Amino acid sequence: MRTIHVIGIGAGDPDQLTLQAVKALRGTDVFFVLDKGEVKSDLTRLRRDMLETHIPEGGYRVVEARDPERDRRAGGAAYSPAVGDWRSARADIYARLIEEELGEDETGAFLVWGDPALYDSTIAILEEVLERGRVDFTYDVVPGISSVSALVGRHRTGLNRVARPVQITTGRRLAEGFPEGVDDVVVMLDAHQAFRQYTDEDLHIYWGAYIGTPDEILVSGPIAEAAPRIERLRAEARERKGWIMDTYLLRRHPKKA
Amino acid sequence: MRTIHVIGIGAGDPDQLTLQAVKALRGTDVFFVLDKGEVKSDLTRLRRDMLETHIPEGGYRVVEARDPERDRRAGGAAYSPAVGDWRSARADIYARLIEEELGEDETGAFLVWGDPALYDSTIAILEEVLERGRVDFTYDVVPGISSVSALVGRHRTGLNRVARPVQITTGRRLAEGFPEGVDDVVVMLDAHQAFRQYTDEDLHIYWGAYIGTPDEILVSGPIAEAAPRIERLRAEARERKGWIMDTYLLRRHPKKA
Ligand SMILES: C[S@@+](CC[C@H](N)C(=O)[O-])C[C@H]1O[C@@H](n2cnc3c(N)ncnc32)[C@H](O)[C@@H]1O
Ligand SMILES: C[S@@+](CC[C@H](N)C(=O)[O-])C[C@H]1O[C@@H](n2cnc3c(N)ncnc32)[C@H](O)[C@@H]1O
Repeated sequence: MRTIHVIGIGAGDPDQLTLQAVKALRGTDVFFVLDKGEVKSDLTRLRRDMLETHIPEGGYRVVEARDPERDRRAGGAAYSPAVGDWRSARADIYARLIEEELGEDETGAFLVWGDPALYDSTIAILEEVLERGRVDFTYDVVPGISSVSALVGRHRTGLNRVARPVQITTGRRLAEGFPEGVDDVVVMLDAHQAFRQYTDEDLHIYWGAYIGTPDEILVSGPIAEAAPRIERLRAEARERKGWIMDTYLLRRHPKKA
Repeated sequence: MRTIHVIGIGAGDPDQLTLQAVKALRGTDVFFVLDKGEVKSDLTRLRRDMLETHIPEGGYRVVEARDPERDRRAGGAAYSPAVGDWRSARADIYARLIEEELGEDETGAFLVWGDPALYDSTIAILEEVLERGRVDFTYDVVPGISSVSALVGRHRTGLNRVARPVQITTGRRLAEGFPEGVDDVVVMLDAHQAFRQYTDEDLHIYWGAYIGTPDEILVSGPIAEAAPRIERLRAEARERKGWIMDTYLLRRHPKKA
């Protein structure tokens, strides 16, 4: 039976791999790498460095495939309604890779950025491949340190306050309004800096870009003061590197414990 | 200057330590262990085993202290209004430990269950110690795999659905009503199985106890079917071990992607 590991590799710091992830890497015959295009080549390199560090003796294969283009016309970096088609196109590619590139008794792996549980489609796509029934395999998930954990760790703050809830959401959702019933909100996938809508409120922002990498930038403070700084730093960094990944926590009424 | 690491050690599986956590363990002179009483001795043993595995040559000190009793009269395992007093009592103990047990140029560490960012007071207590100004130190936070990541990893599902938010909350909050604006809710610190209030709804539950340990129990399914099973398994396990730690994800309208 074919086996597949979905391995969370952390969100940028190679030392944020878990021991379980290292063991899974070392037990893998074939790594599937889906290339998202030039701009993310830093991230592809980070994955390759991890393999070279943890499997110095080699003996594994790396199979590359081109990710299908996602239709972004619906706007922004958040998922568009075309996500269903895109997932289906991706399932075709995964099915073919697994069938053609992985021997019957071999183990394959997908290296997933951060934690595979957060805003990542690998698990859903593997489920779709299994449902189609063309190729059979078992798989497991190796949790990773998410960019959310990395963000608050670097800022040395908690995600939630005592006995209170926290919500994790997208930039697009935040643009539609501040979530109900929570005063602590983590925002991911925000191409439009939706936090700028909330600069008049009693909010503290903890922001980070390229967290855990040598390019890491951290800013925190009352939102009115921090927002212009973040905007400027974000624009400069994006210009310099050609791409950006950032995440932030908004904390309402920051004085309350 | 004294240095302190707040190290997330994962939520039960010793292989869910990160490489960064292992390095921090190995760079520590003094480990502070706050004993929460007999019932949690399994967890204390797990911490000791980690030290023996990753620092076989020894050379570190372990300083134990008794955790102040938290006032639980206000009910349940969730935090009571007495949490402020309790935190302050804990800050007294931490200040004393750091001042008396850690040399001026030494490094100390607190080993925190799961991720220090989720429902843990270590960071807030260290901040309180620093504010009091009696003893000075620098500290950093090493993120860990939370029980939330471990839960969904074992169930091979995502925390959120495509482009949608997820909330992390407590059993006490869930007992007050299903959170607004979200269809995916993770519940922690639930001593009263608040999910039983929702067995009539179109919810899928992914439940786990002692996740990552040899005692792990996982149940998932439509809530009406799964709830009685969870109740029974939970009561049996609690009786057998004397304590339980469980977490679950509630997913509304599970058929939607
Ligand atoms: C498709 S999601 C994947 C999230 C990933 N599975 C995780 O656990 O972090 C991509 C989003 O994650 C966040 N992100 C990932 N890595 C990051 C990093 N190193 N620094 C800041 N944000 C990051 C950004 O919000 C980005 O838009
Ligand atoms: C005080 S909180 C600490 C959470 C921890 N910092 C984390 O990241 O998982 C304790 C709660 O975490 C959850 N928990 C911790 N470890 C767990 C495990 N191994 N299995 C199931 N739930 C766990 C339970 O909901 C428990 O009530």
